[in-house]
Amino acid sequence: MFVIQNSSLSFLNRNTVLWLTLSSLKGISQVILIENTVTGFIILAAIMISSPYLGLITLLSVIIGTLIGKIGGADAESVNRGLFGYNSVLTGMALSLFLSGENRWFIALIGAAIVAFFSAAMIHVMKNTGLPILTFPFIILTWFLLLTTYRMVTFKLSPELIPQDLSHWTLNIKGETNWYNGSVKGIGQIFFLDNNLSGILLYIAVFWAGWKFGLYAIIGNAAALITSYFLGGEHSLIFMGLYGYNAILTIIAVSIVFKDNQRFALLVGIIAACLTVPITASIDTWLLPYGLPALTMPFVLCSWLVLGARKVLTSL
Amino acid sequence: MFVIQNSSLSFLNRNTVLWLTLSSLKGISQVILIENTVTGFIILAAIMISSPYLGLITLLSVIIGTLIGKIGGADAESVNRGLFGYNSVLTGMALSLFLSGENRWFIALIGAAIVAFFSAAMIHVMKNTGLPILTFPFIILTWFLLLTTYRMVTFKLSPELIPQDLSHWTLNIKGETNWYNGSVKGIGQIFFLDNNLSGILLYIAVFWAGWKFGLYAIIGNAAALITSYFLGGEHSLIFMGLYGYNAILTIIAVSIVFKDNQRFALLVGIIAACLTVPITASIDTWLLPYGLPALTMPFVLCSWLVLGARKVLTSL
Amino acid sequence: MFVIQNSSLSFLNRNTVLWLTLSSLKGISQVILIENTVTGFIILAAIMISSPYLGLITLLSVIIGTLIGKIGGADAESVNRGLFGYNSVLTGMALSLFLSGENRWFIALIGAAIVAFFSAAMIHVMKNTGLPILTFPFIILTWFLLLTTYRMVTFKLSPELIPQDLSHWTLNIKGETNWYNGSVKGIGQIFFLDNNLSGILLYIAVFWAGWKFGLYAIIGNAAALITSYFLGGEHSLIFMGLYGYNAILTIIAVSIVFKDNQRFALLVGIIAACLTVPITASIDTWLLPYGLPALTMPFVLCSWLVLGARKVLTSL
Repeated sequence: MFVIQNSSLSFLNRNTVLWLTLSSLKGISQVILIENTVTGFIILAAIMISSPYLGLITLLSVIIGTLIGKIGGADAESVNRGLFGYNSVLTGMALSLFLSGENRWFIALIGAAIVAFFSAAMIHVMKNTGLPILTFPFIILTWFLLLTTYRMVTFKLSPELIPQDLSHWTLNIKGETNWYNGSVKGIGQIFFLDNNLSGILLYIAVFWAGWKFGLYAIIGNAAALITSYFLGGEHSLIFMGLYGYNAILTIIAVSIVFKDNQRFALLVGIIAACLTVPITASIDTWLLPYGLPALTMPFVLCSWLVLGARKVLTSL
Repeated sequence: MFVIQNSSLSFLNRNTVLWLTLSSLKGISQVILIENTVTGFIILAAIMISSPYLGLITLLSVIIGTLIGKIGGADAESVNRGLFGYNSVLTGMALSLFLSGENRWFIALIGAAIVAFFSAAMIHVMKNTGLPILTFPFIILTWFLLLTTYRMVTFKLSPELIPQDLSHWTLNIKGETNWYNGSVKGIGQIFFLDNNLSGILLYIAVFWAGWKFGLYAIIGNAAALITSYFLGGEHSLIFMGLYGYNAILTIIAVSIVFKDNQRFALLVGIIAACLTVPITASIDTWLLPYGLPALTMPFVLCSWLVLGARKVLTSL
Repeated sequence: MFVIQNSSLSFLNRNTVLWLTLSSLKGISQVILIENTVTGFIILAAIMISSPYLGLITLLSVIIGTLIGKIGGADAESVNRGLFGYNSVLTGMALSLFLSGENRWFIALIGAAIVAFFSAAMIHVMKNTGLPILTFPFIILTWFLLLTTYRMVTFKLSPELIPQDLSHWTLNIKGETNWYNGSVKGIGQIFFLDNNLSGILLYIAVFWAGWKFGLYAIIGNAAALITSYFLGGEHSLIFMGLYGYNAILTIIAVSIVFKDNQRFALLVGIIAACLTVPITASIDTWLLPYGLPALTMPFVLCSWLVLGARKVLTSL
């Protein structure tokens, strides 16, 4: 009994708080595949500026995910690097935004906890493939929890998410052409943020982690912006950054983070960034009858495609 | 020639009949993750009471599945434990109930045979993950065969299964609040049975295999009943046991059958049982445009989630 | 610098052209799981007769896929056997046919390139299962790219593909009963060809590779024809060969190509061929709300089912 009290005290001591702070900030930065506490802090600030409520959810979510990894006894290095936090960050934020009702913060935090278990299960299942789990657990869990709203009174869906019949769908691409918005908002959409100041702060956060991260993010976003414009996507989506955020994540994953000695890594990353555009269009169509958002699924699919292909096409 | 005749004779001798009877009864009990001939027998009786026709389908289905495992040369211990029978039981029963038309018994038995092959394929594919296949083959095959009805005149769907457009769906949770029904019918729904006497017989069958099975079944069902009531599910579904049966299966899988030395197994089992409720709501929504029932998919997903996570979160 | 020029020159020399020709023709024949240059050549002729435009797309697609395998540094034997070409052939052809608009040849060739990477990724992911990837990459990529049409102006869907609401769907199986067409057109549908001359040429191509291939193709097609007729499928589909092509591919895969010493390989192949019929009906229903064609998914699912089951049911 004494020992347990002692350890539970030590659990709250200064070292633990410091560890939790650093791991959580890294967890936030891992959303964009970066492991850097300052980057995490600037991202948190960018979210807080946009909405203090959302910032609080972000912070609590990443703490929940990280603690589950720690208490659950996962590989210590993975927990310390924030790898149990980033799916919780995204799930907490997405559920806060796409649900409505007073109790949504509670569902969001429960979701942030469940997704940490889901991440652990995915890490186990994908171990043999050598591919990273990326944000797959967040996407699937969020889709599942959003669809419960049609069957449970307590869960309320945001009125923005409307299921539509594909046979009555007509495409209207008209809308404002604002290249400045398109350049800045893409990175914001990774964190569901739709204002330019947050976008600029996020670029600062990314550049802090290394000029290469920042530069590649700009290249990836530009590639997607141009591709989506020329393929004729909806302008309202393009210039809100909704065709850009998956491209940024993909180029960082493919050309920096999960690269080993490939000579054409930047070129392949740009091609993969362009490919996220039709994949986003396609996933939006698949989800139309359910009214769900594509989230970061295009990023996950395109990154798995390239990373998996590299194991066989070893010269690329 | 003589040898073959001899062996085909011995195939029909007393030992073979005994082996087939025991393995088949265990196959029936494996539907609720129990390996016990008496439990299997009581379950068969509970089905027979509800419908002798359905009881006969159950018996023939489990024999088909077990024989395919045996003749196919699968691992003898797995066959003897009934692991090639339970998916056939569920597939045979589900197809008999959700199809209509005179010939449905035949399609049901064909389905019971195919699912045994599907189980074998799944066992192979999932070997590396160390996760059990549970009732996944039954669910997927049943969904596939039910959807053939829209394209083939010979297959006729039960008029109860109606595809609906999510954009015209409105949730109406009103309905009778009958806690007694809710307590007893959950376990019956595992076998598609909707009468209280069968429910009570099934509880006896489960308690026969061990007080722990029975007690945990009651706890799991109660957890789901309360969760679904407070989350605001449809009363007509809750008190028919349709939010309970997946919870019973999940708590037995997570806290008893696939547990090794976890300290918090009961607590995790209860949480997983509660989680089946929103997952059921979500799967019902996914399937709405196709008019398909969720079957035991929530059980499979929640169990895989916990069992997979445990391989990484080793302290839980 | 000199070395690079030298190797790039040698890349265009006679040996390289010969290698590319042979590997590409084998790539075309691999669509029906055959590795034979003459078979590949006759198939290409059958496509050319039907449409020179489609023949050109076929040729360019298979060259693209094969070159990506070669330059990417994939296992040389796999590339030489045409295993990086067949998914490109099908993707290029399908996109040319199911898209409309002047630019569709360009999208088709881009698709043929992407699917080669997808094939590589699938080969990696499925390595541990010991199952072949078959035409899975082609199916998934084609479905994805066809659905982009609803969101991007540049991609235009063929007006034949119409999404329909399952709740308003009524089955009408009436239509011409033409057993000659049914016999010949099934094999043509593997290559999206709908004329009898091409069908007969394709049979010649298959028989050239071995009488067993040809005979089994006829048996598989007949099994599916009879099954679909007696199960009451739509006559317009049956006698266009749309229930037959998956059966032909499945029986060749199960009973010839991926067979090792199974005694009942032909019987199992016939059963698998029959099973493709309800699976086709089911996949058509799943895809109805999206207006997508089933492509060769029934073949992939039925073959995986049998090949996976054989790893566990070792006597069959």
